[in-house]
Amino acid sequence: MRTITPEPKPPLRLNALRDAEGPVELRGMVHNIRDMGGFSFVLLRTGRHIVQCLWDAARLGELPFRESDSVCVTGRAVREPRAKLGFEIHIDGAAVLSRAAELPPVTLYKQNVNLSLDSHLAYRPVVLRHPLVRAVFRLQDGLCRGFREYLTAQDFTEIHSPKIVSAGAEGGANIFKLDYFGRRAFLAQSPQFYKQAMVPVFGRVFEIGPVFRAEPHDTCRHLNEYTSMDFEMGFIDSFRDIMTMETAMLAYTFGLLREEYADVLELLRITLPATDSVPEIPFHEAKETVAREYGRPIRTYADLEPEEERLLGRWASEHCGTPLVFVTHYPTAARPFYAMDDPADPSVTLSFDLLLDGLEITTGGQRIHDYESQVGKMLGLGMNPDEFESYLMTHRYGTPPHGGLGLGLERLTAQLAGIDNVRYAALFPRDMHRLEP
Amino acid sequence: MRTITPEPKPPLRLNALRDAEGPVELRGMVHNIRDMGGFSFVLLRTGRHIVQCLWDAARLGELPFRESDSVCVTGRAVREPRAKLGFEIHIDGAAVLSRAAELPPVTLYKQNVNLSLDSHLAYRPVVLRHPLVRAVFRLQDGLCRGFREYLTAQDFTEIHSPKIVSAGAEGGANIFKLDYFGRRAFLAQSPQFYKQAMVPVFGRVFEIGPVFRAEPHDTCRHLNEYTSMDFEMGFIDSFRDIMTMETAMLAYTFGLLREEYADVLELLRITLPATDSVPEIPFHEAKETVAREYGRPIRTYADLEPEEERLLGRWASEHCGTPLVFVTHYPTAARPFYAMDDPADPSVTLSFDLLLDGLEITTGGQRIHDYESQVGKMLGLGMNPDEFESYLMTHRYGTPPHGGLGLGLERLTAQLAGIDNVRYAALFPRDMHRLEP
Repeated sequence: MRTITPEPKPPLRLNALRDAEGPVELRGMVHNIRDMGGFSFVLLRTGRHIVQCLWDAARLGELPFRESDSVCVTGRAVREPRAKLGFEIHIDGAAVLSRAAELPPVTLYKQNVNLSLDSHLAYRPVVLRHPLVRAVFRLQDGLCRGFREYLTAQDFTEIHSPKIVSAGAEGGANIFKLDYFGRRAFLAQSPQFYKQAMVPVFGRVFEIGPVFRAEPHDTCRHLNEYTSMDFEMGFIDSFRDIMTMETAMLAYTFGLLREEYADVLELLRITLPATDSVPEIPFHEAKETVAREYGRPIRTYADLEPEEERLLGRWASEHCGTPLVFVTHYPTAARPFYAMDDPADPSVTLSFDLLLDGLEITTGGQRIHDYESQVGKMLGLGMNPDEFESYLMTHRYGTPPHGGLGLGLERLTAQLAGIDNVRYAALFPRDMHRLEP
Repeated sequence: MRTITPEPKPPLRLNALRDAEGPVELRGMVHNIRDMGGFSFVLLRTGRHIVQCLWDAARLGELPFRESDSVCVTGRAVREPRAKLGFEIHIDGAAVLSRAAELPPVTLYKQNVNLSLDSHLAYRPVVLRHPLVRAVFRLQDGLCRGFREYLTAQDFTEIHSPKIVSAGAEGGANIFKLDYFGRRAFLAQSPQFYKQAMVPVFGRVFEIGPVFRAEPHDTCRHLNEYTSMDFEMGFIDSFRDIMTMETAMLAYTFGLLREEYADVLELLRITLPATDSVPEIPFHEAKETVAREYGRPIRTYADLEPEEERLLGRWASEHCGTPLVFVTHYPTAARPFYAMDDPADPSVTLSFDLLLDGLEITTGGQRIHDYESQVGKMLGLGMNPDEFESYLMTHRYGTPPHGGLGLGLERLTAQLAGIDNVRYAALFPRDMHRLEP
């Protein structure tokens, strides 16, 4: 009987390839061919690297492949200081594994991708093959790893909450509706209700998953579907415990990026923010600081305006040596019904946003844990607690003081990589006009 | 200025608590109180453990808390062989952090949860606090960790594909529809198109995320929303490379569970399947084996029937020493349009299912990589390739031979934990009748 054993071929390691004594084998897609007359430079693109190979036409004849084909070459690794990796492969033979039907409509081997947003996104499956474009998503891979590894080490448990729900957690009209076997259902705006329900179960939980916002906003900062990194933690002393956990998570993640994603940081020219001491500034003081420092008159106290956020980022960089800044104590009217009011001043909440380079990347805060308080706040807002019966089970049957946050993965990616439109930080972005690819 | 530093309090470690020389502090929810006359046993439930504490009424007076309250006790750790953890906390003082409004409608400290499916799921936020129930989701946390850690070490990159899509990847009518800014959109049945698009980008990719199936099936095996663990890998020699990768991933994951989730395995009485050699059996031979060994007449050659899968699981356990079995070479008619036909017999595909204890937990196989072949197969099936323009970009502009699989997290969890209804393996399951909690 035929059986399968758990022994896959080991993945490609550059060092092993470079230091091999005998013949080597390399599989990849033909990224570029440069005919030098008599021989050709062939760049092979693997999942992680671009490896320079040499095809000697005098010895091997005509090239049996062209750009975008998938090939397996055999040859010898030779030290070559002028090659980017410090070595190149002198090809002895090549097998074509798969042929492209057409050459790509986009040149993938030039330094930059010069396409309009529309063309870029229309050709997204091809453009993503460009080394600079794909690097953004290696960065994203590292950000998710860091988030999970750190929180796992801090005794957080991963959860998977439903995305088809019977009520929106964040209120408002910005929610997608669908027909669910004849009933009206919605797409989850956040995992808020569920992560709160899990606090009395595991104490600390996290989830990385899609959230859906039917916001009719066609801006550089909005996506209608994005990836939210959420955590929720119980037994907190203060909402500052949440900011501390986030700062520590970012510090760990940036360390991981420096260690294991150095090539990505270099390719994208990323300088990671300092995390040893992140300033916090209360909402009203933040408004006044921006007004005073940058001469921008305060037009509303309802919320921070995008321009104020931008200037706060500048202020943090100039005065605190980090592009990160926590804005705390948002007005009660600007926060959802589950936010805990500040006992010292109930017009504000024990909440925060984290800004990076002047853009909000996180919203978080302490939640109401007491059943009567939560029902009271709902009634005060004209809500009907009966419609939230299963949500309120968490409070009714006891839950510790707790809070948490949601961190937008695409915004974090964009801000770190210096990307000015968040669409480029989503593999296949969804905006008001885009359902494809 | 106030700043946040990246130094959270360290998480609770049982050894540190047990071995502490001086006073200790412990936060948790009051799981159970047993009045022994003069003193009480108080079980405190933390995110991971149940810790026995002793309340001496003669010294401390009346208990200031009741079941389901959240408390912080101070005291001393004392060795006590009769306590489950080998020690208990003698309480010196207690602070109530949060009070439950009501006692839970479910007894959480009894050995088992004796509720009907309907009651259990209606009270899900509370029932999940039961040690046996929550253990299922600690197991799930470990399964996701294992999948990611192993694949990351094998150079897979994590992706996040959109869940709102313009076309279904798996065909059929079982797809949820929604209104997307006036256009018709769907909820993704799988990340199939997107993970294939990412093969020429990263070579190897994975995703753990929700998928949606509008199947009107009210069975123990179906959920309308579930968590799919997907991977896709390029430059394969054969579809067996995918089975090898899955087997190795499972072997790693089971090792991780043995090392770091031993308490969960013990609580749920789980014996992990052997993975050193997993049998593979072609579809037709599988049918005939079941017919021969267990006297079950073959009623159809279109697909495996649930009863045949069950018997195949029994056959694998009896003859191969593992409840795992790969069934290969499914009929072409039973597989999607992207499945690669076997060149030796185009009536079957280079595909497989993995069964665990007689239930399909994985579907996978090699995909068509050649553009003309894929267009040809679509035309043969009466499909219009123009409707799949962005999907076919992957093939048109070159992609290596590749394949992958989707592994149902809830089914895997249920099969390992011996759960007979997959609903219990989802935190908040979605079936035809359930949108809440």
